[in-house]
Amino acid sequence: MPFSPVEQLEVPLQKVNITDAFWLEYQRLVKDVVVPYQWLALNDEVADAEPSHAIENFRIAAGRSDGEFYGMVFQDSDVAKWLEAVGYLLAKSADPALEKTADEVIELIGEVQQPDGYLNTYFTVKEPQQRWSNLAECHELYCAGHLIEAGVAYAQATGKTRLLEIVCKLADHIARVFGPGEQQLHGYPGHPEVELALMRLYEATGERRYLELTRYFVEQRGTQPHFYDIEYEKRGKTSHWNTYGPAWMVKDKAYSQAHLPIALQQTAIGHAVRFVYLYAGVAHLARLSQDQEKRDICQRLWQNMTQRQMYITGSIGSQSSGEAFSSDYDLPNDTAYTETCASIGLMMFANRMLQMGADSQYADVMERALYNTVLAGMALDGKHFFYVNPLEVHPVSIPFNHLYDHVKPVRQRWFGCACCPPNIARLLASLGHYIYTQRPEGIDINLYIGSDAEIQIGEQRLHLRQSGGYPWQDRVLIEIDCDCPLAATIALRLPDWCADPQISLNGTPLQVAPQVQRGYLRLTRQWCSGDRLELTLPMPITRVKGNPLLRHVAGKVAIQRGPLVYCLEQADNGSELHNLQLPADAPFSLLAGKGMLSGKTLLQASGLRISASDAAQQPLYRFNPAPAEMQPQTLTFVPYFTWANRGEGEMRVWVDEK
Amino acid sequence: MPFSPVEQLEVPLQKVNITDAFWLEYQRLVKDVVVPYQWLALNDEVADAEPSHAIENFRIAAGRSDGEFYGMVFQDSDVAKWLEAVGYLLAKSADPALEKTADEVIELIGEVQQPDGYLNTYFTVKEPQQRWSNLAECHELYCAGHLIEAGVAYAQATGKTRLLEIVCKLADHIARVFGPGEQQLHGYPGHPEVELALMRLYEATGERRYLELTRYFVEQRGTQPHFYDIEYEKRGKTSHWNTYGPAWMVKDKAYSQAHLPIALQQTAIGHAVRFVYLYAGVAHLARLSQDQEKRDICQRLWQNMTQRQMYITGSIGSQSSGEAFSSDYDLPNDTAYTETCASIGLMMFANRMLQMGADSQYADVMERALYNTVLAGMALDGKHFFYVNPLEVHPVSIPFNHLYDHVKPVRQRWFGCACCPPNIARLLASLGHYIYTQRPEGIDINLYIGSDAEIQIGEQRLHLRQSGGYPWQDRVLIEIDCDCPLAATIALRLPDWCADPQISLNGTPLQVAPQVQRGYLRLTRQWCSGDRLELTLPMPITRVKGNPLLRHVAGKVAIQRGPLVYCLEQADNGSELHNLQLPADAPFSLLAGKGMLSGKTLLQASGLRISASDAAQQPLYRFNPAPAEMQPQTLTFVPYFTWANRGEGEMRVWVDEK
Repeated sequence: MPFSPVEQLEVPLQKVNITDAFWLEYQRLVKDVVVPYQWLALNDEVADAEPSHAIENFRIAAGRSDGEFYGMVFQDSDVAKWLEAVGYLLAKSADPALEKTADEVIELIGEVQQPDGYLNTYFTVKEPQQRWSNLAECHELYCAGHLIEAGVAYAQATGKTRLLEIVCKLADHIARVFGPGEQQLHGYPGHPEVELALMRLYEATGERRYLELTRYFVEQRGTQPHFYDIEYEKRGKTSHWNTYGPAWMVKDKAYSQAHLPIALQQTAIGHAVRFVYLYAGVAHLARLSQDQEKRDICQRLWQNMTQRQMYITGSIGSQSSGEAFSSDYDLPNDTAYTETCASIGLMMFANRMLQMGADSQYADVMERALYNTVLAGMALDGKHFFYVNPLEVHPVSIPFNHLYDHVKPVRQRWFGCACCPPNIARLLASLGHYIYTQRPEGIDINLYIGSDAEIQIGEQRLHLRQSGGYPWQDRVLIEIDCDCPLAATIALRLPDWCADPQISLNGTPLQVAPQVQRGYLRLTRQWCSGDRLELTLPMPITRVKGNPLLRHVAGKVAIQRGPLVYCLEQADNGSELHNLQLPADAPFSLLAGKGMLSGKTLLQASGLRISASDAAQQPLYRFNPAPAEMQPQTLTFVPYFTWANRGEGEMRVWVDEK
Repeated sequence: MPFSPVEQLEVPLQKVNITDAFWLEYQRLVKDVVVPYQWLALNDEVADAEPSHAIENFRIAAGRSDGEFYGMVFQDSDVAKWLEAVGYLLAKSADPALEKTADEVIELIGEVQQPDGYLNTYFTVKEPQQRWSNLAECHELYCAGHLIEAGVAYAQATGKTRLLEIVCKLADHIARVFGPGEQQLHGYPGHPEVELALMRLYEATGERRYLELTRYFVEQRGTQPHFYDIEYEKRGKTSHWNTYGPAWMVKDKAYSQAHLPIALQQTAIGHAVRFVYLYAGVAHLARLSQDQEKRDICQRLWQNMTQRQMYITGSIGSQSSGEAFSSDYDLPNDTAYTETCASIGLMMFANRMLQMGADSQYADVMERALYNTVLAGMALDGKHFFYVNPLEVHPVSIPFNHLYDHVKPVRQRWFGCACCPPNIARLLASLGHYIYTQRPEGIDINLYIGSDAEIQIGEQRLHLRQSGGYPWQDRVLIEIDCDCPLAATIALRLPDWCADPQISLNGTPLQVAPQVQRGYLRLTRQWCSGDRLELTLPMPITRVKGNPLLRHVAGKVAIQRGPLVYCLEQADNGSELHNLQLPADAPFSLLAGKGMLSGKTLLQASGLRISASDAAQQPLYRFNPAPAEMQPQTLTFVPYFTWANRGEGEMRVWVDEK
């Protein structure tokens, strides 16, 4: 097996040790709770959860069991995401029992692989004659992509190449099936994912054909005559999904970002997860093929997405129907879909944009998505999950209004369509990939997460030790250990929310402004062991206002401190949160969280409540009433990511400003 | 044919002449535009509209044409509503050509009637074996109800009883099919309507069996074992509608207000039109059977509906899914469904509550629904219609967000499911039924609509002439002409929006307060010809505030003058209406409308606009920004019912208050 990786800009997980209490707890949850629980779920051993059948599907496809395929057409991807997360865990610490289990799953997967390399349990068990007949709807390439990612992660973690060999054989099969040749299919996935996976496979193996296959998928996308129509006709107009009408997924091509070639796409559109997965792949391809045009496309669409269609919590995809973007400045709070997976994909896209060149706009969004929506996707116990992350919830209205059918007021145990929980697991387990970007001339620090990182700069070794109390405290200490002297650039991101960052080197303040490029403070010098950088990112409570074109937040304010967006919860503030007002000049104080929220910093301010006593006995409308009676009330804000950990209750991020 | 009507509390249309310029224009539109247009539509002679096929369905069912049934299962009701409107028109003025056409339609209908009295083109043509097999879903009784209403109206207008005979034969057939007997079906309609129609038939004929049939339908409703389940099993679980899943209309019994017996129902629930049609029938039954328990049920549900679930525009049914109520205090403005027909049904329910006893809470809502939502349902040209009446519209967002799939930013020509336009026509053509309630001891004036009315009080005749410039002007003049002296009570509704009504008799002011009962000013005296009552209902601009439990209008204000709710439109105020603020103390002035709005009174106030210049170039979120720059802007408010008559643009009723 050739294994000559392309130089990666991510620091290998083995070289990044997270030491930060905040994140160690999440790492622990993933290792001790999420991944074991997920394993039980994949094997249908969780009593109160919908069955997954995912492992059993592989056993059936391998001929080890009799039975029928059960689950979504993309059920295989849950096994792949689990294996990928396991790979990341094993990269950090040995776990022979877990590794043995994973190796057994890999063997099982190997048995399912067909002699020609094809690998998919749904089609193998259920519709063996229909392979590759429904790219628009049936997720074969999506599942392949996740398996490829698992193969890469597992090989990088363990050095074992069995799964990597399997996925290379699968990728080679795909490369034979798809392409411009007369006998090849001129198609591409309905649900992008394989693009970014193939780019990772290229990085892991150095095999240029995987990059070329990505390029084919990306450049073929949205061309005419349209492949989705061609295959639809060819298979006799059958359809796998009819949720919104016959073959809607074939017809609504923007849903899959296949309405136009990517060069002509102007706005973030369609299914939000597909969008960010696709453009993460395109960005990865742009960097490794030095394709400025594709980079420009990524930048243009990034701009539209983050400057017109993103919530303050770093979430995207405002509508439930199609789990999709809507249009510029259309961001309702209470009906928001804003899938956890979409924010994970947003981080993947952001990270690849960063790898093309340090620019804090990407890291700012990556951080915003991580600390708010991605973390909100999982309960503090690691056992309950949100798919959907609205910015305002009024639980008593949910059961009676179909607008809220997708909204859960508390996190759920698991899901039949289990995309988000394992996605959170693999993201958190691979967080080391997002903290730093290593470059020939030095290192970018994208996220302030306490960690030790070791990187090679040319022939030399640079060891960074980051510490501090982020996201609660404003001081970040970076200690250097290296072969002295080491000429290198250490670039520190200056977050968008921080008005006045300060830096000192070995106790001596440095000027910030002259050394800032695209939001990174770039320190180029001869570094020596013992050098200490102290970055101070003052975290006053920040009032965030929406662009005047955001009609859903007119007259409202959101509260942020550091990277954390805060919200009001009924548990602290009583019900009818819409009757609370925050005066424009109200001073804030910090408050240490207790109970479930211990270790978290809460915020308090003197606010007002419109009196609603006796309101249920009052008329629905009043004519020329006296000004509303206002009562002073202390408003308690909790970090958005911690909401709904204390039972069911109202929540809102955007608060009326008085 | 026996025809010994029960004494009606509605003044017959022949005895009420509307003389009011405001309403004469609507009467003219109905007569000259809507009814003729509707006739063309029913005959598929409107080029740019969806075909109706409704007349052709009758021709096919009568054996005059070959072909297939086309349209909704309730397509017959469009013909019935047209005939009912024609009846009302003919009651007011002769139109031999129209009457001839109507008589021909009635003959056609007669030919469709089966020997046993059954009458429905869908089942006769398409599923003759399936009659009465699917009450929950298939609208047979609903269509029968509309035909019965037409028969009553046409007989009362023309004295011709052919259609009345047909519908009596149909009603008698229904009375044989349904009832407690062993061989009878123990069912009731999925879509209520036949109840109120049968009560009208009872009033028109004096035949008590129609009242008893109504009582059967009403009391059988929601009992166990559930009839919808029984018939569903019996017909082999087939389903006519699968919009929201298999047989959802059978399963979601609250959709049809059939989840519980009405005595146990506590809240307005389910499909809003069904709800108000049902309870209009129940109220009618309660009055004519002196059933206090049913009256109490109506009052309880009326209270819930109007004090928890009604918009300021007198519209109901806040959600698109199921065209239904949601729950208490859940009234979103931009996604509101608020069907025109539901407000028409609300007026019908209100009028029947009034007939049980003058109480201004019913007339206030009736007026609110009429002057705002019902009128808004039709364009000022009489040719375009709204089904859906949201209180806030942002047209550029509509095509991209499925939340707004049901919202049209401008009125449409006609509809495939054409319930609302003919419903508006029959309501406006029968408006005389709503203005007055006649009682043995006098008359209640519910609505201030310029008109001459003649009523009998015992053996004596009372002629009232109402005039004034309502809803624009505050003076209502009531002139009496009668056999002198006439002992009678004239009761004048004092509207909820009017803080300081004044009254004079022959120039002498009378005290108001001591003579008010349940919101009606009751003047009991010996009346003589030449008596002049002058009622002044001062119409200052009123600021309306929502109950503090209405989260969607927190911090906002609506503007009302007289019975009219006003709104902001983009045509007068520019786009991004959410950036407009109305200071709490801003004085208002009146402004005469021009162009399309000539004759209408507009309102203006000095408001503020949050500057959004260059906003598209600004970031999506800003941290601790300087206070928003506010520019003074004159805010122009137009009556809600006139919105969207000047092209597509934003609209909002609830405005941010500064």
